[in-house]
Amino acid sequence: MPVDQLLEQLHLGDPRSVARAISLVEDQAEIGQHIMQGLDQQRLDGALTVGITGPPGVGKSTLTSALVEQLRQREIRVGVIAVDPSSPLTHGALLGDRIRMMHHALDRDVVVRSMATRGRLGGLCAAAGATRRIMAASGCRVVLIETVGIGQSEMDIASLADITVLVLAPGFGDEIQAMKAGILEVVDLLVINKADMPGASKLRFDLGREAAESDRVLETVAAENKGIEELLAGILALEAAFRKDGRFRQRRQQSRDKETVDRCLDLLRDRIAGLIRNHPPADMDPGVAAEVLLERILHIPG
Amino acid sequence: MPVDQLLEQLHLGDPRSVARAISLVEDQAEIGQHIMQGLDQQRLDGALTVGITGPPGVGKSTLTSALVEQLRQREIRVGVIAVDPSSPLTHGALLGDRIRMMHHALDRDVVVRSMATRGRLGGLCAAAGATRRIMAASGCRVVLIETVGIGQSEMDIASLADITVLVLAPGFGDEIQAMKAGILEVVDLLVINKADMPGASKLRFDLGREAAESDRVLETVAAENKGIEELLAGILALEAAFRKDGRFRQRRQQSRDKETVDRCLDLLRDRIAGLIRNHPPADMDPGVAAEVLLERILHIPG
Repeated sequence: MPVDQLLEQLHLGDPRSVARAISLVEDQAEIGQHIMQGLDQQRLDGALTVGITGPPGVGKSTLTSALVEQLRQREIRVGVIAVDPSSPLTHGALLGDRIRMMHHALDRDVVVRSMATRGRLGGLCAAAGATRRIMAASGCRVVLIETVGIGQSEMDIASLADITVLVLAPGFGDEIQAMKAGILEVVDLLVINKADMPGASKLRFDLGREAAESDRVLETVAAENKGIEELLAGILALEAAFRKDGRFRQRRQQSRDKETVDRCLDLLRDRIAGLIRNHPPADMDPGVAAEVLLERILHIPG
Repeated sequence: MPVDQLLEQLHLGDPRSVARAISLVEDQAEIGQHIMQGLDQQRLDGALTVGITGPPGVGKSTLTSALVEQLRQREIRVGVIAVDPSSPLTHGALLGDRIRMMHHALDRDVVVRSMATRGRLGGLCAAAGATRRIMAASGCRVVLIETVGIGQSEMDIASLADITVLVLAPGFGDEIQAMKAGILEVVDLLVINKADMPGASKLRFDLGREAAESDRVLETVAAENKGIEELLAGILALEAAFRKDGRFRQRRQQSRDKETVDRCLDLLRDRIAGLIRNHPPADMDPGVAAEVLLERILHIPG
């Protein structure tokens, strides 16, 4: 299929064209660039990306699924990017997510894509960034990026989002003890899921006074669809506020710059590795070898 | 202190000079390069780096501490690099490690360094690589790199090591289910710690026939110092084998090349980010912007 036709189908929301476009862009084929340049800019600007992160076991996938349900009830087309930045030693988590998403499988207005790391984080950020743009251009008003875990890698990916949501649950608060006071400076919304379980109020208390009183801390029981409507309302209210006060545009710019840097580094990794293979540096310290190499290949204007 | 004097003290094993040198190199001061170039190459070649990785809770720190004890009984000087690649949301783990290492605090032949991510994995790999070289030059015959977790980040850092050890414990095998058949292709030694707990034999069984029969799967009870002597013997036997069959040299070369690439990318990240800040790319897709940028600044000989 020629690019023009693929883009036309993609903008009509055809799920197979969306999937095809994502794959072409992931493979960094030249055609991928044509696709990215041909995406409807207005739809990109109008779409909202929500990052959903949190430790394993808090019910992120159930929550994501419930949010999808809620969005579909309002006839909003939605994209889901499930990212697993873990190692080859630990796959399995994503499979579960996929299966849980299955009951949206016949709905052509729910576009799901899973991504694993393939050993490079920068590449993953770049791929997730491109995917959300393709989904947005295909008509997704909202794109959810769900990451497994709360390590640095996950936070990096979450930082692509316009709005970030951290999900916790009773018994899973200990890991974030060290940060509890400042946690609302790092994420926009904090969800206490499984809020019907013992320990929910203790978790809220542990998060400190600021969090306990904040309207940015919400409680849900995702498995029973409780609090999901309020969560979505909270997300959309924040979006409206951020669009009004300029933060939305500012974050977009930052995440675009970050993506550009990541994409540069991703492209450079292979080329530098190839250069080292073909012209092995003299037997010197890697730090020194790197300086020498960059001196030779790089010309950055002042 | 002038560099020559610092290097002299470092090669005599002076702990403060070792710490100072690591800090200077981490700060990427020009002086850091002089230090790296002045390190005793023979000691680097002779030292062994062992990566110790595994999920939280399996007793890695206790095991590392017991290995240090065992090495000290043989009067072997040892370095420990404790790496926590997790996010600002989850510190705390390292603090524990530090405290557990305290009973070696007065032993000047145990050199300990903790590292957290500061948001860049490549930089962390590079810093850990430089640190192990400084420790080796200061006379550490063995350097242990302990990482928290078994995500991709941790595996990347473990890949710096000459020999990698994965630590599991009863009840912590589920996460690696997906890989259990091929796990011994990824790590050199697999330790089942807390082997006196119920579930140890089930874990061994779950790892599959190959692992169940392999002499590369060892059992320990680190808290009671059981199996540690055998573990150290296993590590040193592998080292001897790898030095003999060429794998040692080959891995060193690979890890050196990888470090050079990481160091290049780390240096480039700031410079490219600065370039984007000072010369904002036209309003285009980040993938396209990256290509345009690299076209302008990069000259890689064919």
